[in-house]
Amino acid sequence: MEDIDVFRTTSTRTAPDPARIAEFAAHINQSKNPVLVYGGDIARSDGWDEGIALAETVNAPVWNGPFSERISFPENHPLFKDALPAAIGPLSKALQGHDLVVVIGAPVFRYYPWVAGDYLPTGATLLQITDSPYEAAKAVVGDSLVSDSKLAMIELSKLITPRNSQPQPTTKPTSTPEILEDIKYPLTAKQLFAVLSVHVPEDYILVQESPSNIPELSRSRLGTICKPDSYYTMGSGGLGWDMPAAVGLAFAEKWSGRNRPVIVIMGDGSFQYSPQAIWTAVQHGLHITIVVPKNEEYGILKSFALLEETPNVPGLDLPGIDIVSLAKGYGAKAHFADKAEDIQDLFKKALGNNGVTVIEVPIDKHIHALLDD
Amino acid sequence: MEDIDVFRTTSTRTAPDPARIAEFAAHINQSKNPVLVYGGDIARSDGWDEGIALAETVNAPVWNGPFSERISFPENHPLFKDALPAAIGPLSKALQGHDLVVVIGAPVFRYYPWVAGDYLPTGATLLQITDSPYEAAKAVVGDSLVSDSKLAMIELSKLITPRNSQPQPTTKPTSTPEILEDIKYPLTAKQLFAVLSVHVPEDYILVQESPSNIPELSRSRLGTICKPDSYYTMGSGGLGWDMPAAVGLAFAEKWSGRNRPVIVIMGDGSFQYSPQAIWTAVQHGLHITIVVPKNEEYGILKSFALLEETPNVPGLDLPGIDIVSLAKGYGAKAHFADKAEDIQDLFKKALGNNGVTVIEVPIDKHIHALLDD
Amino acid sequence: MEDIDVFRTTSTRTAPDPARIAEFAAHINQSKNPVLVYGGDIARSDGWDEGIALAETVNAPVWNGPFSERISFPENHPLFKDALPAAIGPLSKALQGHDLVVVIGAPVFRYYPWVAGDYLPTGATLLQITDSPYEAAKAVVGDSLVSDSKLAMIELSKLITPRNSQPQPTTKPTSTPEILEDIKYPLTAKQLFAVLSVHVPEDYILVQESPSNIPELSRSRLGTICKPDSYYTMGSGGLGWDMPAAVGLAFAEKWSGRNRPVIVIMGDGSFQYSPQAIWTAVQHGLHITIVVPKNEEYGILKSFALLEETPNVPGLDLPGIDIVSLAKGYGAKAHFADKAEDIQDLFKKALGNNGVTVIEVPIDKHIHALLDD
Amino acid sequence: MEDIDVFRTTSTRTAPDPARIAEFAAHINQSKNPVLVYGGDIARSDGWDEGIALAETVNAPVWNGPFSERISFPENHPLFKDALPAAIGPLSKALQGHDLVVVIGAPVFRYYPWVAGDYLPTGATLLQITDSPYEAAKAVVGDSLVSDSKLAMIELSKLITPRNSQPQPTTKPTSTPEILEDIKYPLTAKQLFAVLSVHVPEDYILVQESPSNIPELSRSRLGTICKPDSYYTMGSGGLGWDMPAAVGLAFAEKWSGRNRPVIVIMGDGSFQYSPQAIWTAVQHGLHITIVVPKNEEYGILKSFALLEETPNVPGLDLPGIDIVSLAKGYGAKAHFADKAEDIQDLFKKALGNNGVTVIEVPIDKHIHALLDD
Ligand SMILES: Cc1ncc(C[n+]2csc(CCOP(=O)(O)OP(=O)(O)O)c2C)c(N)n1
Ligand SMILES: Cc1ncc(C[n+]2csc(CCOP(=O)(O)OP(=O)(O)O)c2C)c(N)n1
Ligand SMILES: Cc1ncc(C[n+]2csc(CCOP(=O)(O)OP(=O)(O)O)c2C)c(N)n1
Ligand SMILES: Cc1ncc(C[n+]2csc(CCOP(=O)(O)OP(=O)(O)O)c2C)c(N)n1
Ligand SMILES: [Mg+2]
Ligand SMILES: [Mg+2]
Ligand SMILES: [Mg+2]
Ligand SMILES: [Mg+2]
Repeated sequence: MEDIDVFRTTSTRTAPDPARIAEFAAHINQSKNPVLVYGGDIARSDGWDEGIALAETVNAPVWNGPFSERISFPENHPLFKDALPAAIGPLSKALQGHDLVVVIGAPVFRYYPWVAGDYLPTGATLLQITDSPYEAAKAVVGDSLVSDSKLAMIELSKLITPRNSQPQPTTKPTSTPEILEDIKYPLTAKQLFAVLSVHVPEDYILVQESPSNIPELSRSRLGTICKPDSYYTMGSGGLGWDMPAAVGLAFAEKWSGRNRPVIVIMGDGSFQYSPQAIWTAVQHGLHITIVVPKNEEYGILKSFALLEETPNVPGLDLPGIDIVSLAKGYGAKAHFADKAEDIQDLFKKALGNNGVTVIEVPIDKHIHALLDD
Repeated sequence: MEDIDVFRTTSTRTAPDPARIAEFAAHINQSKNPVLVYGGDIARSDGWDEGIALAETVNAPVWNGPFSERISFPENHPLFKDALPAAIGPLSKALQGHDLVVVIGAPVFRYYPWVAGDYLPTGATLLQITDSPYEAAKAVVGDSLVSDSKLAMIELSKLITPRNSQPQPTTKPTSTPEILEDIKYPLTAKQLFAVLSVHVPEDYILVQESPSNIPELSRSRLGTICKPDSYYTMGSGGLGWDMPAAVGLAFAEKWSGRNRPVIVIMGDGSFQYSPQAIWTAVQHGLHITIVVPKNEEYGILKSFALLEETPNVPGLDLPGIDIVSLAKGYGAKAHFADKAEDIQDLFKKALGNNGVTVIEVPIDKHIHALLDD
Repeated sequence: MEDIDVFRTTSTRTAPDPARIAEFAAHINQSKNPVLVYGGDIARSDGWDEGIALAETVNAPVWNGPFSERISFPENHPLFKDALPAAIGPLSKALQGHDLVVVIGAPVFRYYPWVAGDYLPTGATLLQITDSPYEAAKAVVGDSLVSDSKLAMIELSKLITPRNSQPQPTTKPTSTPEILEDIKYPLTAKQLFAVLSVHVPEDYILVQESPSNIPELSRSRLGTICKPDSYYTMGSGGLGWDMPAAVGLAFAEKWSGRNRPVIVIMGDGSFQYSPQAIWTAVQHGLHITIVVPKNEEYGILKSFALLEETPNVPGLDLPGIDIVSLAKGYGAKAHFADKAEDIQDLFKKALGNNGVTVIEVPIDKHIHALLDD
Repeated sequence: MEDIDVFRTTSTRTAPDPARIAEFAAHINQSKNPVLVYGGDIARSDGWDEGIALAETVNAPVWNGPFSERISFPENHPLFKDALPAAIGPLSKALQGHDLVVVIGAPVFRYYPWVAGDYLPTGATLLQITDSPYEAAKAVVGDSLVSDSKLAMIELSKLITPRNSQPQPTTKPTSTPEILEDIKYPLTAKQLFAVLSVHVPEDYILVQESPSNIPELSRSRLGTICKPDSYYTMGSGGLGWDMPAAVGLAFAEKWSGRNRPVIVIMGDGSFQYSPQAIWTAVQHGLHITIVVPKNEEYGILKSFALLEETPNVPGLDLPGIDIVSLAKGYGAKAHFADKAEDIQDLFKKALGNNGVTVIEVPIDKHIHALLDD
């Protein structure tokens, strides 16, 4: 990249009001059983370490905000719980037992289907730290503080009395390797991610736009994010962002010399927003591996229709798309694979070699429940 | 299509103010040498016949407005001239000799590159009839009347004194068959259109989004539009509209039982805006034939760079795209052809059979002048 | 006024689509008992005579649209009824018995308080002619035709079969002179308007912004408008427009040489939006007579609170304003008068002499019902 | 005032990014000859004392930002200079000799007439601290930091090396009492303010909207602001704000029990935007004293016309307005006074008694230069 003349600069971070942060710290210190919810601001503010430090000082479980576009806390940490469900009732149920919810760097909250319930567990209060005045204004509940997440956590940590109780053991559900023992074809998404997890490299970036498979991906080893700046997806659920985003991330890895491989899990429907991005990646010699779990449908919208009890929604099937042919049309290496070993081989090879590879994998068409029970 | 409940209706046409139309008629009657410019409103108002009647009464040459999205007048009519150039100077030069310019159903005017000059030939005045208050307000020159084109032409015709002079012989330039005699490969666009013109059916719809080849297409038999509602392209030059538009037109032909084949000439760059439209067409069993003249570049932008004397514009090349593979990815029949006979055969077969066919044809990469001299 | 260079013009009227107007005429011809509702477009399109001709051809009663900003039909005409009530239920009740409602030049409809009911009497249909695409789109019921009112009425009249039945006798309620026989002070608004009506000139312009007194004014001789272009008020109920509007009208009377006196009835609350307008009028030597019926309150908002059953609305009283002092502050002749003879004398003198005169008259503070029963 | 339910709160201040504030501090420490420009943010952030502390640490002169809506620094402080001129060339001329301009809590910059010149003295750089991201983005020159002013100054002060050089003597020009020795009538604005300055109370709020007289007011004792939260005017030059603002301030003084008198200097033109505000003040028994220097014109616009060399601008005269009559119309005590002693007496009495008093004082109509030389 060429140099650019810079004529003037402005600060890009704001720190917390000391009086406000002191109020927040006092609330936390007085809480009997606080819980933390982390969001994408933390990742963007480079606050991974500060987030860990804060969680360990408060010694409270950490959830990922619903539909979070980044992961800001190691998912293998003993304090990590899971992603919060994106619906009013289930979310407050998940937080039951806590008297204080501390949200850092996330909206309060991103909801997807409407499911009745309270915003918070009875008796609980909420504090939000966000770098967005807009998010502060529109939070449905709680008191807000506008600040860069990292700077706020640094100040907060100074004022928090550490809790010395035993760390709470993690409950994040993860897939067990047994699921690969007795395979029927087509694979389930869970099995596909188990297959891909066998050869997960030490360092990688995971990009996903595979709506109905997010929970299964998250429970796999591949989808369990333990390092900073390793996970990117669309904010909320706006599709079409991740294919071009993956190209941008691969550019950054190349230019910076970090050279982490970019792994993309891309739904067959979501693939259609910007297949052209593949061409850009190919032309620029980037390293991207795209795996497409193909269920030939907008799966999650069928789950949605189930939850909302609206049968016969038209236009949710996606037959007759040849992902391999599309990918080759834009110059990528492309393969169809339906057997576990083939997928594993192709995935390993793709990660090992530079260039753009697309792997199309048929998966079963079982309609999942939109919300876990 | 299912029936739809209609709760209320509003009129969709407005007629001309009689006083204003009388003024316009008087102007035309007083003119020594008027000229007509027709635009897309006429086609949309179903005014094909009224446009011919008016032209023959005034006995004046008819131009198509620059960058017109429809053709509203038979291009084989003795009074038809050509499409006006889309630039200030060249446009007024083309109208030289006329003392009155009557624009019906078009903006005044759509310009593309800036080329110095007067808006009108010296001494000439302009009248505009448009159904759009916005276009009336923003016309750069002339007096405007807001009305449906067809209704305005009906009223106007009643007040115009017919001119009995000999019809002026047409000057619309057309390609001659000789251009097929001595072919070198890859074909020029002119030759490709000559090849396609051999088997042009009696009735068809032509859709085009092939910026650098518009003049050649227009001069071919295929591109010479002689029947109403047979030609559609993007308004002004906004790409990405024609692929989905062709699908909509094919739907209409199917549902209405008219069943005219839809022929699409689609640049290899323009193809990339909505290749997904092919999938919709395939799934619905529509009849569309898409020919892609592939020059592996954004050809017209290179012509633009030439005119503007801005060398080294990056990003204008489009190597490495396999149109056949893309089209097959969405389920279309797809063929590569570079020989005249093969193209002719494939085109004839595509027109004869239902379904979606894409024919990729490499053409030569000569950069044309943006404006004719 | 100085001359202004005019570079280009556009038409300002559109005529009706002949097909649509024929449909509308057929509807009217088939109706057993149509009713007409006239609005401000007619006045603005200079369609006073055409409105009378149409009404007499159809031989149907004519209502003024609710909250109309102009009066477009002579209120002493045997076919004139009254202004329609500005509420859903009462409006359709007023139109009961008609099978067809033809609205020309008015919104469908302006409503003020919400009062439950049907939009139309059972079985009735509605046609609207409006020059505003926006009003056509947002009409709550009926079919619309977009056109200048005058041009539409000219075309409509050609297609209507005259109805020869006896003219229906008018029912417009008017105040009788007796109300002046037994006066108690302070005057009621009804009495004030009766007093002012004694010396009403042959030609005048009436401007009013006196919300709670509109019905009484309308029933007085002063408020009964029988000539074109003689009445102006705010569109809908947006206050603050009439004081400056009166100044503009007085300018127009002066410059045009028509020299009709401008009479303004201005509520003491409404007076406060733009008292500065008086200064402009004084400085330009205009002829305006402003009568302020002073009830020391936002009277109509108290009526509104009554209807809505919301007692104790604060801020509806306006004590301690000296209108005479304000008017003098801006250079007008100004008088306080509470006795019938004094008011009459001052009003007569003000109309006789050029210049700006403000007459402040205390009236009684009885809270009217917002809607007549 | 009644209590209000508060459901949620958000922080209203943001603190500076520590890294950015350190950069700013380093710049200041390295500067040879810095200058400070203070704006309204400081007053709003309650940073009066911090502003003094910072100025004394840096030991640099303090200017008030051009067209500042508040005064944030004691104008009798030895480091106070003056208000900066609101024009490009004159502003940078005023700052000549400084190598660093530190703007805190103000736009960079508010300009009124366009006068050619550099944004900054040659070789100088600029730092801005503002609580408005919008102002940070639109500053014409310099580097910006977004933060509450008070919090930023607290942090900055910790990092600044105090400069021990002798304080620079103030140069703020002030009117001398001699100007009252030899009075001709009508008074000049300078004399009027000198008259009013004789009995200036210990504590008061000054509100002004008297465009052409701002410099003279500022140089008088009345207009020399030495205490926090004592001065309010329109931001930039948008008229019509100060009359209602004075009412709001008087409410606040009453409710808070501070009971400082509110003194308003209101141009005869500016008075016309919201004379109705007087009524509100009267009805609520507030204590406001409004002095109207009446030159019967939009004086400053005549100065503007002079500077721009555009003679014969129409509509700049304001004859025939009786301010006393207007004020009485809304229930205020109101007096005309043209003699020094009368003005002094009336002013003293008005300040001593509760209630609203308006004093109309004719002043001479000399057209000032828009910018001092
Ligand atoms: C921009 C945008 N358009 C439409 C949607 C609605 N939407 C949500 S999920 C989805 C389908 C996703 O299909 P696919 O990628 O195949 O994932 P699957 O649900 O089958 O796992 C759509 C269309 C959206 N979220 N964003
Ligand atoms: C929506 C939109 N984006 C971009 C452009 C700019 N543009 C004009 S022509 C063109 C390239 C067209 O390429 P192709 O379809 O291959 O036609 P060719 O010029 O090669 O004949 C582009 C990108 C446009 N007109 N509209
Ligand atoms: C611009 C605007 N502001 C406020 C209102 C609400 N409003 C309707 S009537 C009214 C008071 C009118 O008072 P006055 O002129 O004294 O008439 P009265 O009702 O006493 O006859 C107000 C404030 C409005 N209609 N328009
Ligand atoms: C809202 C608004 N309208 C118009 C103006 C333009 N303007 C600037 S000063 C001025 C006249 C001020 O007259 P006056 O209060 O008598 O002060 P003087 O200049 O005579 O001292 C006007 C109209 C403005 N600044 N703001
Ligand atoms: Mg899918
Ligand atoms: Mg091309
Ligand atoms: Mg009133
Ligand atoms: Mg003045």
